[in-house]
Amino acid sequence: MLEALLSPGAVAVIGASRNPAKIGHAILGNLIRGGFQGTIVPVNASADRVQGFDSCRSLKDHRGSVDLALVTVPAAKVEAAVAGSIDAGAKAVVVVSAGFKEIGPEGAELEERLRKMCNDGGVRLLGPRSLGVINTRHRMNASFAKYMPKVGGISVLSESGAVCTAILDLAAAKQLGLSKVVAIGNKADLNEIDFFRLLAGDEDTQVVVVYLESISSGDEFIKAAEQLATAKPVVILRAGTTGAGARAARSHTGSVPGEEIAYSAAFKRAGVVQAESIEALFDCAAALAMQPLPRGDRVAIVSNAGGPCVVAADALEHAGLRVANLSDATTVALRKKLPLPACIQNPIDVLGDADPDRYAHAVQAVQEDAAVDAILMIMTPHAMTRPAETARAAAQSIRGEKPMLAVFLGSADAMPGREDMVASGLPDYPSPERAVKSLRAMREYAAWKARPPRVVTRFPVNRRRVERLIGRQRRTGRLEVGEVRAKEILRAYNFSVPEGLLALDSDAAADAAEKIGYPVAMKIVSPDIIHKSDAGGVKLHLSDAEQVLDAYDLLTLRFARHAPEARLEGIYVEKMCPRGLEMVIGMRRDSQFGPILLFGLGGIFVEALKDEAGYLAPITAEEGMQMLMGTRSYELLSGARGQPGVDTSAIARGLQRISQLATDLPEIAELEINPFTITTGGGEPIVVDARMVLSGADR
Amino acid sequence: MLEALLSPGAVAVIGASRNPAKIGHAILGNLIRGGFQGTIVPVNASADRVQGFDSCRSLKDHRGSVDLALVTVPAAKVEAAVAGSIDAGAKAVVVVSAGFKEIGPEGAELEERLRKMCNDGGVRLLGPRSLGVINTRHRMNASFAKYMPKVGGISVLSESGAVCTAILDLAAAKQLGLSKVVAIGNKADLNEIDFFRLLAGDEDTQVVVVYLESISSGDEFIKAAEQLATAKPVVILRAGTTGAGARAARSHTGSVPGEEIAYSAAFKRAGVVQAESIEALFDCAAALAMQPLPRGDRVAIVSNAGGPCVVAADALEHAGLRVANLSDATTVALRKKLPLPACIQNPIDVLGDADPDRYAHAVQAVQEDAAVDAILMIMTPHAMTRPAETARAAAQSIRGEKPMLAVFLGSADAMPGREDMVASGLPDYPSPERAVKSLRAMREYAAWKARPPRVVTRFPVNRRRVERLIGRQRRTGRLEVGEVRAKEILRAYNFSVPEGLLALDSDAAADAAEKIGYPVAMKIVSPDIIHKSDAGGVKLHLSDAEQVLDAYDLLTLRFARHAPEARLEGIYVEKMCPRGLEMVIGMRRDSQFGPILLFGLGGIFVEALKDEAGYLAPITAEEGMQMLMGTRSYELLSGARGQPGVDTSAIARGLQRISQLATDLPEIAELEINPFTITTGGGEPIVVDARMVLSGADR
Repeated sequence: MLEALLSPGAVAVIGASRNPAKIGHAILGNLIRGGFQGTIVPVNASADRVQGFDSCRSLKDHRGSVDLALVTVPAAKVEAAVAGSIDAGAKAVVVVSAGFKEIGPEGAELEERLRKMCNDGGVRLLGPRSLGVINTRHRMNASFAKYMPKVGGISVLSESGAVCTAILDLAAAKQLGLSKVVAIGNKADLNEIDFFRLLAGDEDTQVVVVYLESISSGDEFIKAAEQLATAKPVVILRAGTTGAGARAARSHTGSVPGEEIAYSAAFKRAGVVQAESIEALFDCAAALAMQPLPRGDRVAIVSNAGGPCVVAADALEHAGLRVANLSDATTVALRKKLPLPACIQNPIDVLGDADPDRYAHAVQAVQEDAAVDAILMIMTPHAMTRPAETARAAAQSIRGEKPMLAVFLGSADAMPGREDMVASGLPDYPSPERAVKSLRAMREYAAWKARPPRVVTRFPVNRRRVERLIGRQRRTGRLEVGEVRAKEILRAYNFSVPEGLLALDSDAAADAAEKIGYPVAMKIVSPDIIHKSDAGGVKLHLSDAEQVLDAYDLLTLRFARHAPEARLEGIYVEKMCPRGLEMVIGMRRDSQFGPILLFGLGGIFVEALKDEAGYLAPITAEEGMQMLMGTRSYELLSGARGQPGVDTSAIARGLQRISQLATDLPEIAELEINPFTITTGGGEPIVVDARMVLSGADR
Repeated sequence: MLEALLSPGAVAVIGASRNPAKIGHAILGNLIRGGFQGTIVPVNASADRVQGFDSCRSLKDHRGSVDLALVTVPAAKVEAAVAGSIDAGAKAVVVVSAGFKEIGPEGAELEERLRKMCNDGGVRLLGPRSLGVINTRHRMNASFAKYMPKVGGISVLSESGAVCTAILDLAAAKQLGLSKVVAIGNKADLNEIDFFRLLAGDEDTQVVVVYLESISSGDEFIKAAEQLATAKPVVILRAGTTGAGARAARSHTGSVPGEEIAYSAAFKRAGVVQAESIEALFDCAAALAMQPLPRGDRVAIVSNAGGPCVVAADALEHAGLRVANLSDATTVALRKKLPLPACIQNPIDVLGDADPDRYAHAVQAVQEDAAVDAILMIMTPHAMTRPAETARAAAQSIRGEKPMLAVFLGSADAMPGREDMVASGLPDYPSPERAVKSLRAMREYAAWKARPPRVVTRFPVNRRRVERLIGRQRRTGRLEVGEVRAKEILRAYNFSVPEGLLALDSDAAADAAEKIGYPVAMKIVSPDIIHKSDAGGVKLHLSDAEQVLDAYDLLTLRFARHAPEARLEGIYVEKMCPRGLEMVIGMRRDSQFGPILLFGLGGIFVEALKDEAGYLAPITAEEGMQMLMGTRSYELLSGARGQPGVDTSAIARGLQRISQLATDLPEIAELEINPFTITTGGGEPIVVDARMVLSGADR
């Protein structure tokens, strides 16, 4: 698959130029300098020789067929060039030229015509606006990147050509080898999903590095990404996550990015490592490509200076990793091998005058220690330090059972001996902070790999009843489902909902209260009023019939005065809920990824504090708990400040029930239980208020 | 001042060695290779010539006097070496050797003897455990760092020699010039404060870069840091901020770091830029050294590729900066100069084939635009890009009125033309994220520089009364001040405190309630019970005499049963507070920095969410508001989700009153008003509950 694109025999460069300022010049030059072994067919409308090659005026003039065509001519001439390429037998076309979807509707139409033309001709299209494609093992640099990368195990996919170039530069500076590099550009035909599938089975690829601004299809993305992550680590930087970034992304690729919480939920599900910056992309990839995954979170630090240890320990704590407690055997071993002033507790200080042997001894000792899951080796170059030998000695002393990352403080890029280190598989970082972030990524990926099989619990529920209730709501013509009906739906899914009755006059309200038992709450029911409290439509703590009768009159009279146009369906009389810890749980159906479950602290806090967790439905019991643990509020739920905690598994079950409801009933577009109240005394959380929104008829 | 340390005429190297593995070898070699113009006196106990210099067996054998002695012998021989140095006329001594405070009590004693010896001899001591000292303009590299930095305007102070070395390497890689480099080590005598004072007046120093793990004296630190920051930017990385980091720091320098919130409050007050990583330290320093400060937060982006613009826009939003809206004149100017497919809205895309001129045009256009405060120039190297010329053209096109930072994606360290850029004063970064963090630091420093004069409001209060109340509390022998007395104190400082009376029997309670007016709350008063609610010692919403009588009996009987040993002083009857938004405000006296004012959301949320602001007392009205705005909760206070906001200035006044109380009465060690409740209806916030702790008698 995609043989013609990644391993072609004959390549045409349409727009091959003699002018060094042109992209067509750069691409042809790169193909030649990269040592491409197949046939190169330069096409230039006005010259017969380009960069020492005979060129044709048009691809028609070329007698043989081509496998791959690289199109670099201006946008207006691209259609003809692609048509000519198809005629010449090309099975893949890379359109490097810009001026398509990103410039507006006209460009989008042109792009769609290209896509269709290729599709009809059985040809795969990369781009337009692609930087090109590189396959180091095929010695093909069919791109306008500056140079051919070293051969290695990291493959790169990038929606931005510029970020792709930057990645190539970083890889070169780190002496890292690459396998395939693909700039997917505007993704008119081939997109990230095609390449996820391809790279999952590509033996030459060990790690995949991806820069994305949008995705083409949520479901398929998750499936393909999970399949790829199961085979090898995937590190993604997704940009355009803020309002400002998204606006910039729209004007750039014409894509409308989804919401941050949805993407991050999708990445978590698929086991994708999310990089937080361009630098982190490669920091993580290098570690994942060169070192084994850690089995736990306990890290040993070996350093020739104290200051960087302090910085590293801070970074570990921030990253949720731990400074390992060394076992006694290790400290005894260290005491024997290290000079007296050395610190033999973790962080281990081998002192400023440490020679390569001393580092090797310390690394070996912590490597043997079962209480250590990963090693951070830090070297600060002093005048008498021998960085290259030390790096070599340390690299040679590791056995490959636990990951070791090296930090060479100062200008690591100028460091001698990096080639040796890379050959020994020891990745290096310019600061403890960056190494620790890579360790955290390894740890998260390892935890995902070791996740238990996903068993989604299905609770016994009354789904038919919910279907009927939704049908009844649909017939009202309103998509907003009010409290009373939303609670009926939730009751059918076995949520604890306070007992309640709809009353149409004050006597019925008093009867209802007697039946339910005091104290009760009373709320207006109107399809026209969403925020009942704000409208003065709620009375709480009513403890006898007189109060209920008064409340009925107050609510209905106030309603009539404040909202004379609105329809009143009655007054809902409900058992008062006990006070407790208030949470919000809910679901929002994302256009890309489907139902996203949400959890956060209740009340007005949830939005201001942005302390929310989002997971894709359906979730397992473990994932329900992970959602809680993913918020800062978890400390509260589990009992902060010596206060008793609440039954967190009951909250997780609530999330699972919503997950089931959202999966069973795609008609529900949004759902919010707010507050969802739980008491410390134990027992199920209670649905105090709830609302839903159904999807429009066109869904 | 410190002439002998920084600009000595004659320097002795005690422990100058022929063995390249020894520090004494490295330091002597550095002095020689650095081109030191004064006299070098190597001292070696067993050799007559070292590295081509005649050496003496002991400093006594040297006929002339020395200004500075560098001591590199093992710890046990340091005392003798220092004594000899003083005898030889040295006015400053640098002890490079380790084995002092950091190894335990014995080392600490030795260190104290050194300090005293130097003090008695009128000699200043740097170290022990110092990497040494460098003064580039004096051509003196009296350190065991690897090489002599270029001459320039950045001075460096570091508590860690290793971090110091790393900084030198980073500076070299960035081609940045340094002025003084001082490794303060264990700070037995000279510490950061001495050098803050020195560097404030040092004409050769434009920016100061500092790595600290502890500070020597809070008050003096703030004074000296503020004085220095007023003269020039100061960038500090403080490590040891987490539990793990602090443990590592203790075993490293023997210092006990203060708390994070106190440091950050001190840095804010003093105008210090706080770096979050070793790399950020120099990223910020380079920008501050080379570029003017921005007048606002509106940033123009000029790039030859879209992807990095998206990344940059995300980073700006996260940093609290804005993507500028260009004025119409600018877009017209850009339209004229840039090719049609270029994006002339901000971020400006000058396209992949941009030549140096195109960048220069775009930079000039945004430079003219009054709606732009700072410029981010991003270049992604393509095969046809000319980075060096582009950098030069861009650097030459800036006028120095607005800051411009350059991002060269990919391996910036290998970039040609950096020397030209540095000569033109254009700092460059390897990623948009790092450039943006530096811009934010510049913006924060600029805001601090432009701060209004600090006018601390003094409210009319009854200070004498508080002194009497505290005296009365002292006589009880208890440091914990309970609710009733704490509220009396706060009332004397004009806080709104609900009316309340202490009742000793149930009839008195009912009388009190009648007098105060219903509804009332009732609370037990006992010096032995701090958490009244937890002990069942609070009744709320009592609305008539019968309820009050019952509550009195319930509270006293329950108290007698649950806490038979505890003393009951009575029952406090208090006007019920209206419900509202609950906050916590308070004060904690830090051992280093004195009173730290605290503000956060109320109830159980404050600790779990870590959404607290801390400022040093005394605060101004502006700082009171800044405290509120510094929390994520500010959105709530100012009216989130369309809800009405509260009177934030009234909360700020509450903080100012606490500030005054803490400043007036150093006896108060801790104070917490929790909850401090404000209603959306307007009016002053109310002290619903409060407690204080007095300082021990020994303060």
